[in-house]
Amino acid sequence: MRLVTFDKGGRPAPGIRREGRVVDLTALIPDLARDWSTLFAEDNLERLRELADGVAWSDTIPLDGLTLLPPIPVPPKILCVGLNYRAHAAETGAKIPETPIFFSRYASSLTGHGQPMVRPAASEQFDYEGELVAVIGRTAKHVPPERALDHVVGYSIFNEGSVRDYQKAGKQWTLGKNADASGPFGPHIVTADELPTGASGLHLETHIDGERMQEGRTDDLIFNVAHLVSKASEVMTLEPGTIFVTGTPPGVGLAREPQRWLRAGETVSVTIEGIGTLSNPVVDESR
Amino acid sequence: MRLVTFDKGGRPAPGIRREGRVVDLTALIPDLARDWSTLFAEDNLERLRELADGVAWSDTIPLDGLTLLPPIPVPPKILCVGLNYRAHAAETGAKIPETPIFFSRYASSLTGHGQPMVRPAASEQFDYEGELVAVIGRTAKHVPPERALDHVVGYSIFNEGSVRDYQKAGKQWTLGKNADASGPFGPHIVTADELPTGASGLHLETHIDGERMQEGRTDDLIFNVAHLVSKASEVMTLEPGTIFVTGTPPGVGLAREPQRWLRAGETVSVTIEGIGTLSNPVVDESR
Repeated sequence: MRLVTFDKGGRPAPGIRREGRVVDLTALIPDLARDWSTLFAEDNLERLRELADGVAWSDTIPLDGLTLLPPIPVPPKILCVGLNYRAHAAETGAKIPETPIFFSRYASSLTGHGQPMVRPAASEQFDYEGELVAVIGRTAKHVPPERALDHVVGYSIFNEGSVRDYQKAGKQWTLGKNADASGPFGPHIVTADELPTGASGLHLETHIDGERMQEGRTDDLIFNVAHLVSKASEVMTLEPGTIFVTGTPPGVGLAREPQRWLRAGETVSVTIEGIGTLSNPVVDESR
Repeated sequence: MRLVTFDKGGRPAPGIRREGRVVDLTALIPDLARDWSTLFAEDNLERLRELADGVAWSDTIPLDGLTLLPPIPVPPKILCVGLNYRAHAAETGAKIPETPIFFSRYASSLTGHGQPMVRPAASEQFDYEGELVAVIGRTAKHVPPERALDHVVGYSIFNEGSVRDYQKAGKQWTLGKNADASGPFGPHIVTADELPTGASGLHLETHIDGERMQEGRTDDLIFNVAHLVSKASEVMTLEPGTIFVTGTPPGVGLAREPQRWLRAGETVSVTIEGIGTLSNPVVDESR
């Protein structure tokens, strides 16, 4: 099942994709919560699937006419992971980490599939990072790795747009990872039952205007999804809707010679096998 | 004016303190938003003040019987600042930063005044950090320092409970700064009109069971509140309710010889001149 959130008259609405169309869940159940976080918490995915399956083709909406939002517009936590592919750690000159390096994004840094990915006016050093997302569906705290995947409801794609000079200026990466609308997330969440265990072994590629910039496989993650969920849950509660942005393979603009920054007018696409393609035009921030 | 949020039958309710009592704003205006973030955005503090002033003493609630929550239970952003007092940077062996070091807390790490401050089961190295909080009341983006304080509605107190081994294990501090209920915030927000410009020149002390552990003055901040707000606003939108946790003066347990960690049964109090005292018992996480 493929879960989306779209703009319905200025408010987010959850929907289920069916090929090129969408079942509008708020039309099906008018008093439905408008947030997948809540829907995951209520653990009613199976009920929603059955309801959606009963909807006639003529009552679905063409995806083409919709503005997609991040599948979870305001996750309770966005936990990003740094240097989680050996070849990417190597290309940046960093040591291979011995424990996951977690940092945070705020919801204001998110943008949906097809929406502008915004280069902030403050910097020229705007970079791409194609990444696998794991989505928490069931609250997790003190979960051992062997049970961690029970808490993951599905997977998605992120382009972890990074402002390199801001990222490097402090010891902590917060400013460089949180420019407004710098991080595309989507286009949808694919439920875990449709993918290999832990979304392992999937091919990932990032293209700019059709030219391949990054390539990797999700089984090259130093710390896999089960490890990440388990580790974070040692100290913090992971609420439904929490997302893990699991790290990027080699090929980022920062590590190229010469360095290669994103420019307005370019289109960046991140494709993960079995999930789909997240594609966004780069625009300059308007001031 | 002193703004609180308290637990009203399991839901957060905003109130205005009047000496030892509270005007329950949700009783005064039944359809009121229950979140100061929203109330700040509507810019109706003056209206609320006038309404509250008209409430009879007998219609106020004794503070003693209330459970205080963090004044903003779920801030849109919690922006913490590391190593922002020279003497604290020195005691940890770190360089004096040339630009603010921002890191994030999630709302699940917050707890209210008088509530338990929880040492996670995963670590013995639980430390205190008394800090000044600045609260954004009006949306800020690309704000120069000389206008930044126009966006700050008030000030509060934070005890930035830190799990040192988790903080140090990765290059980023996220796990060590986000244990559940590790960060007391409160007891109230004091509006900016009652404090010196930028809350500068205020005495700050942290005590454990009456013994003074930290002492500093807010004019010793390397990067003051106006600078912090301006800097973050270069790349991100600061929504009403965003809080800046501005850094801690020297005297933390990490830097003592021998190192000194918080233990269940101790009470930690952070006092800032003109704002008040934030006091919390330390308890061990129950599993």
